[in-house]
Amino acid sequence: MMRLGEFLGELKTFLKEDQIILDREGMAHFSYDATERQFMPQVVVLPNNTEEVSKIMRCAWKYEVPVTPQGGRTGLSGGGLPVKGGTVLSLLRFKRIIEIDEKNMIAVVEPGVISKDLQEALKAHNLFFPPDPSSTVESTIGGNVAENAGYTRAVKYGVTRDYVRGLEAVLPDGEIIHPGGKNAKNVAGYDLVSLLTGSEGTLAVITKIIFKLLPRPAIRRTIIVYLNNLPRAADIVLRVFQAGIVPCAIELLDNVTINAVADYINTPLRRDAEALVLIEVDGHLEKTVNAEAREIIPLCESVHGVVEVKLALDEEEANRFWTIRREALPALKALGKDHFEADVVVPHYELPFLVKFIGELEHGDAIKIATFGHAGDGNLHVTILYRRRNFTELDEAYRLLETVYRRTIEMGGSLTGEHGVGITVKDYLPLQIEETEMALMKRIKTAFDPKGILNPGKIFVD
Amino acid sequence: MMRLGEFLGELKTFLKEDQIILDREGMAHFSYDATERQFMPQVVVLPNNTEEVSKIMRCAWKYEVPVTPQGGRTGLSGGGLPVKGGTVLSLLRFKRIIEIDEKNMIAVVEPGVISKDLQEALKAHNLFFPPDPSSTVESTIGGNVAENAGYTRAVKYGVTRDYVRGLEAVLPDGEIIHPGGKNAKNVAGYDLVSLLTGSEGTLAVITKIIFKLLPRPAIRRTIIVYLNNLPRAADIVLRVFQAGIVPCAIELLDNVTINAVADYINTPLRRDAEALVLIEVDGHLEKTVNAEAREIIPLCESVHGVVEVKLALDEEEANRFWTIRREALPALKALGKDHFEADVVVPHYELPFLVKFIGELEHGDAIKIATFGHAGDGNLHVTILYRRRNFTELDEAYRLLETVYRRTIEMGGSLTGEHGVGITVKDYLPLQIEETEMALMKRIKTAFDPKGILNPGKIFVD
Repeated sequence: MMRLGEFLGELKTFLKEDQIILDREGMAHFSYDATERQFMPQVVVLPNNTEEVSKIMRCAWKYEVPVTPQGGRTGLSGGGLPVKGGTVLSLLRFKRIIEIDEKNMIAVVEPGVISKDLQEALKAHNLFFPPDPSSTVESTIGGNVAENAGYTRAVKYGVTRDYVRGLEAVLPDGEIIHPGGKNAKNVAGYDLVSLLTGSEGTLAVITKIIFKLLPRPAIRRTIIVYLNNLPRAADIVLRVFQAGIVPCAIELLDNVTINAVADYINTPLRRDAEALVLIEVDGHLEKTVNAEAREIIPLCESVHGVVEVKLALDEEEANRFWTIRREALPALKALGKDHFEADVVVPHYELPFLVKFIGELEHGDAIKIATFGHAGDGNLHVTILYRRRNFTELDEAYRLLETVYRRTIEMGGSLTGEHGVGITVKDYLPLQIEETEMALMKRIKTAFDPKGILNPGKIFVD
Repeated sequence: MMRLGEFLGELKTFLKEDQIILDREGMAHFSYDATERQFMPQVVVLPNNTEEVSKIMRCAWKYEVPVTPQGGRTGLSGGGLPVKGGTVLSLLRFKRIIEIDEKNMIAVVEPGVISKDLQEALKAHNLFFPPDPSSTVESTIGGNVAENAGYTRAVKYGVTRDYVRGLEAVLPDGEIIHPGGKNAKNVAGYDLVSLLTGSEGTLAVITKIIFKLLPRPAIRRTIIVYLNNLPRAADIVLRVFQAGIVPCAIELLDNVTINAVADYINTPLRRDAEALVLIEVDGHLEKTVNAEAREIIPLCESVHGVVEVKLALDEEEANRFWTIRREALPALKALGKDHFEADVVVPHYELPFLVKFIGELEHGDAIKIATFGHAGDGNLHVTILYRRRNFTELDEAYRLLETVYRRTIEMGGSLTGEHGVGITVKDYLPLQIEETEMALMKRIKTAFDPKGILNPGKIFVD
């Protein structure tokens, strides 16, 4: 039984007044995220350091108060929302870049640092942290780690987990652990670092992150490809990989998305194309990167169904190509409807076939489905646009979502590639994960959090 | 209480006679590994498929019989040794390369496949599985996954875990799970794939592995560098990285190792050098790789203490350079002594300083310490040569080992980078891992294996 009054009383013995928010207006700010759903907490706490987080957790443990760790609230699965009430533990004050260790190519960062600020800070050191969310302006590093975020560069550089070398984290009972470190390799005991990364704030509160960095690639070349045959986009991916080239991005937009972007921003676009593929290569030597780009162009041209291949002439044109991709979701949102965004992933060669399947789904005229995503990773963002208040459309949107999920599983895919399970996917997770495996995950959850106070209501169906 | 008689009786109802070994001579073959320690099992079982593994685990669970999964017995931490008796579960019959999926660049492999055989099979498809153990001739893929093996290419390509996308595994109670799959990204629930990889056979028996592959690099260039100042090797690593180049290998040998190799094989070597550094770059375009190699040479020449830099003229010379590195451990073993091999890892810039510290340790004349390792990863193999039957030397060797371990921890390092904890490191693990964290790892172990029957006696001090 939650004893909120005693919890609040004890909080006040070690937190300052401005660290505890209890008024409705103040709390409302922490009640929603990019899923556009809202859950009001009963209190919001804003600790300044790890010791305070530890004390808060000790109190929450003692008085059985649900705790939802929260970052920049740009999440797309509701991971930071206090669905069971209790307290939001906001990490927005954990804003320090503690260390940039050039010699070992390591950054030590607090979870509340904005992704973009870290990128900027690293530029001065000629270092590079590859995972770069579309929402860099607001998203926090802690959220990126909690959700194991991916983004456009994953095809070459991998996901967030590939860059987390060490953590400081507070367990649900308030104990502090320090798994991993600055080392490139480490097999001393179980890999708690990998387990905590992507655990969606359900196992521990991450209070410090040690990241591996890379030398900053100096050069990039961007290529845009239009096709009148969607599944043939799979062949582009295949031929590029077979040539021994690993681009840093291979993105795909379908015809609905192309047209939404064309309506939304003023940029020349082939509205009649069935698909648009964006390919980028990067590296540290100009001649190398140019050689790769020059190799990709004829490979693309030789693919049946390709109608245009264009290399960006300069940085400005490359940015214009990327704007098309970056504005895809805003353009779709601007259509003024509600939407589901399924974050499905399939083996990369299957992706254009999944896009085609989705494009051919039958549905009422009021509903639109747009798909775009990370073709090189097989990761698709299926955006089903409907009106929530129209129950026929809502029913149909749910039916379509489940159809997409079921087809994904049939193709050997996964229901979420980078957004997380949170509350948006958890009801569908049994489609993918066997009962034995879910039971095992619950036992792991219990090993960390026997009282179930940390981020309850996420991942697992109650 | 173990009920071995009943266990054996039930095994005989579903295994053939040649799948159960009970004679001492037959079992002896499964009683040792590369640690040169020996533990006799009470029975050895050789299942042919996952269903048989599941049935064996069900029986072991019922009759509380310790089960030690085992591969090619090339392990360096004793992970595959039946230290608590019971049964060895050998996976040597799991020999199938089930699928090489070119379009998705995926291999599906059974754990008993020899690493070298997988490499050979992939060549025909122009595909590449980067983790390549020195012991490819005998080591099995399952063991590589269980220990999260690293090897020389980790500096560019990462460790085994970075290539494991999915698993089939049998839990201690016989249930079968299938975490992950062929997908490049997956955040559906906790990352059981990463957790099982490197868990040293203590959480589940891995029966199938889904690997990510890369396009095969066509070209490599190898550079050998001699120094008369050991710590300056750190600057070589730093300058190469700072130039934006990520070599596929940066290896380091100290003077003792150089001389041991010079005595062991007939190859020209600078016996007076304090350090030898081997650098390799690879890629798919000849001009790119050549350009990187040409950039590295003057960078190395500009480092103080460097006495020679030489680019291998051809493949034959490159192989000769690599022979020096590959024969390091055999050359040291040929000195005819017993040895401890510490597999320590520190942030990469620290590594030459750790080597220097070790080189300056005081010890009796009868003892020799040789160090070599993966400089680009900060991973060192410290080889302490002594005679086990001479108690003075044995005592001193233990003292030196602990000194190396303590210094590693002071430098922010880890006691094992790629060999695993097993039985060789477990007594020292509390130097590195806090009590809270060890307790958490034990709770994870219990979440998988509440009866403690799977690979008991490993990682954790009893």
